[in-house]
Amino acid sequence: MLTIAVDAMGGDNAPLETVRGAALASLEARHLQIVLVGDQRRIEPILEETRHDAERLSVLHAGSFVTMDDKPAEALTQKPDCSVLVAARLVAEGGADALVSAGNTGAGVLAAARTWKRVPGVRRAALAAVYPTEQRHGDKQDPFSLLLDVGATLDADADDLVAFALMGAAYASRVSKNARPKVALLSNGSEAGKGPASVVEAHKLLTSHTGLNFIGNVEGIDIPRGTADVIVCSGFVGNVVLKMLEGVSETVMSLARYAYKEKMVWRLGLMMLSGGFQRIKEVTDWEQYGGAPFLGFDRLYIKAHGRSKQRAIANAIKVAGKAAAHGVVEEIAKGMREFEASRQGGGAKAG
Amino acid sequence: MLTIAVDAMGGDNAPLETVRGAALASLEARHLQIVLVGDQRRIEPILEETRHDAERLSVLHAGSFVTMDDKPAEALTQKPDCSVLVAARLVAEGGADALVSAGNTGAGVLAAARTWKRVPGVRRAALAAVYPTEQRHGDKQDPFSLLLDVGATLDADADDLVAFALMGAAYASRVSKNARPKVALLSNGSEAGKGPASVVEAHKLLTSHTGLNFIGNVEGIDIPRGTADVIVCSGFVGNVVLKMLEGVSETVMSLARYAYKEKMVWRLGLMMLSGGFQRIKEVTDWEQYGGAPFLGFDRLYIKAHGRSKQRAIANAIKVAGKAAAHGVVEEIAKGMREFEASRQGGGAKAG
Repeated sequence: MLTIAVDAMGGDNAPLETVRGAALASLEARHLQIVLVGDQRRIEPILEETRHDAERLSVLHAGSFVTMDDKPAEALTQKPDCSVLVAARLVAEGGADALVSAGNTGAGVLAAARTWKRVPGVRRAALAAVYPTEQRHGDKQDPFSLLLDVGATLDADADDLVAFALMGAAYASRVSKNARPKVALLSNGSEAGKGPASVVEAHKLLTSHTGLNFIGNVEGIDIPRGTADVIVCSGFVGNVVLKMLEGVSETVMSLARYAYKEKMVWRLGLMMLSGGFQRIKEVTDWEQYGGAPFLGFDRLYIKAHGRSKQRAIANAIKVAGKAAAHGVVEEIAKGMREFEASRQGGGAKAG
Repeated sequence: MLTIAVDAMGGDNAPLETVRGAALASLEARHLQIVLVGDQRRIEPILEETRHDAERLSVLHAGSFVTMDDKPAEALTQKPDCSVLVAARLVAEGGADALVSAGNTGAGVLAAARTWKRVPGVRRAALAAVYPTEQRHGDKQDPFSLLLDVGATLDADADDLVAFALMGAAYASRVSKNARPKVALLSNGSEAGKGPASVVEAHKLLTSHTGLNFIGNVEGIDIPRGTADVIVCSGFVGNVVLKMLEGVSETVMSLARYAYKEKMVWRLGLMMLSGGFQRIKEVTDWEQYGGAPFLGFDRLYIKAHGRSKQRAIANAIKVAGKAAAHGVVEEIAKGMREFEASRQGGGAKAG
């Protein structure tokens, strides 16, 4: 049985919604054990009032926690018993198979980096965001694509981009049941020579040295279309793109307000759609699909959105369970080994 | 009187719509002279059938032209008498004050770079896109912001970003009548230390060495909001962002299709809005605001959208006239001089 460590104290609605989410998961995901890590005196009263499966849910006390406003490095030094670090240590020592946190992203990333080992060949980790697209993906017809990195590695070089591509493909193939996910590089044009040097070089490496289903470069407009299953970019570009995507409903409402003030039929249409726009906002807020995987280490960390409520937390726990069960880390390690072997072998395509 | 050179052969609808646009401008902008540069045998028959002011409109023959699919460098070498190069030369020699083209962007940029001089202090040029926002800007309450660079300089260093900020501010203050435009750097967080090294360093330089109304870093979500009047980034990031903006209506329709298939009220709302979405698409297609200024040279080039029809061309001609009349180039040169002086003077804020 797999065990998921949940940072009970992380997130805007913690510990109430994290505990409720874990309780929900204990009832719905009967193949998982869940450990709530955090302040026992605050967690237990919530658990007492929430339906859960006590056989599958336990509490590990942690004396402090990192707030959303804390500076990650300082916080981890000053609070060595904070919940996210205690949870990451539990995972490192084999007491749990994956970590879920809706708390301070930087603190989660740092806690993982300090307690876990990097997958051989991966020099820098990536945070991968799942976002909704028009086109469906994989056997399960998921309406989601994966974008990475979205902020862990701001300046990614060509080797980093290749590692991100391999990691994203491993995640998509194992979690979305997409045997040969379409992988693309984000650039300013679809031709092979387009983009900064790192992207041009990564394009060559991905074409010659990986067995990936690499479809080449895609442009900004392809992101919402869902042309690729996995889109790869530096953390700086990915972060800007992700924040634009999260604001897409707001964007359209704003443009609409500006452009159509006078037309009654458009006003009416907008009013009818306002619930719909709210729903888009929720979808782009990761509510449905649990969280963003942090990839590159020998353990998995699923970052749930800061605003997560119980349903999002429960989904993040399930995703963490699925990723651990289906060997995402092993698949990444295999991809990196094959890439290194192909590159040293001098160019033969591995796949 | 100012003279605007128009590349009659550039754009998806050239020469029909470019000639019609120039004809329209000759009637509406009576302070401008317009020179249509291109194939006389194709331009004149269109002019004969189009109302125009013959006093303000003339034709300069060019024997060839660059197509949208041509490779810019090759095309300019193989076609030394192509319309965009003939027009750029006319501007360089003082026969016209600015260039308007809806043709191949790379060819326009290269034609300018080969025939014009760079503003002292500016090492790399920038293409600035105008895009619609919710917030209004400047004395004229323009619902537009400026984003630069969007593709001329893919890897911009800190000095380039500072030059882009000064150029964008000069353009906004002179063309949008916005005396102290709010200038921001695009980053992955609003704090001064956020972003890659080039952005962090540019933040310092903009704070200490320019008289700009620098409001610090903004994030992806601030782009459609219109938090800043001028947003500065490298050409790679700007190009990805611009292409996402252009696809924003498509994005929302796609998300809507995915999320609300079942709800009748939403379907109806979407149907009522479909004309509205088309209109957003047009707005984001630069129809209203004429074109994207190419900044950094001693002359101005306004790049109209490739799909421009007569109204967009006429607007681009007017914008080119306004930019030339209000001394955008002189304002850029002044900003660069003040920046260099402040930096050599050791940090005193110039403004």
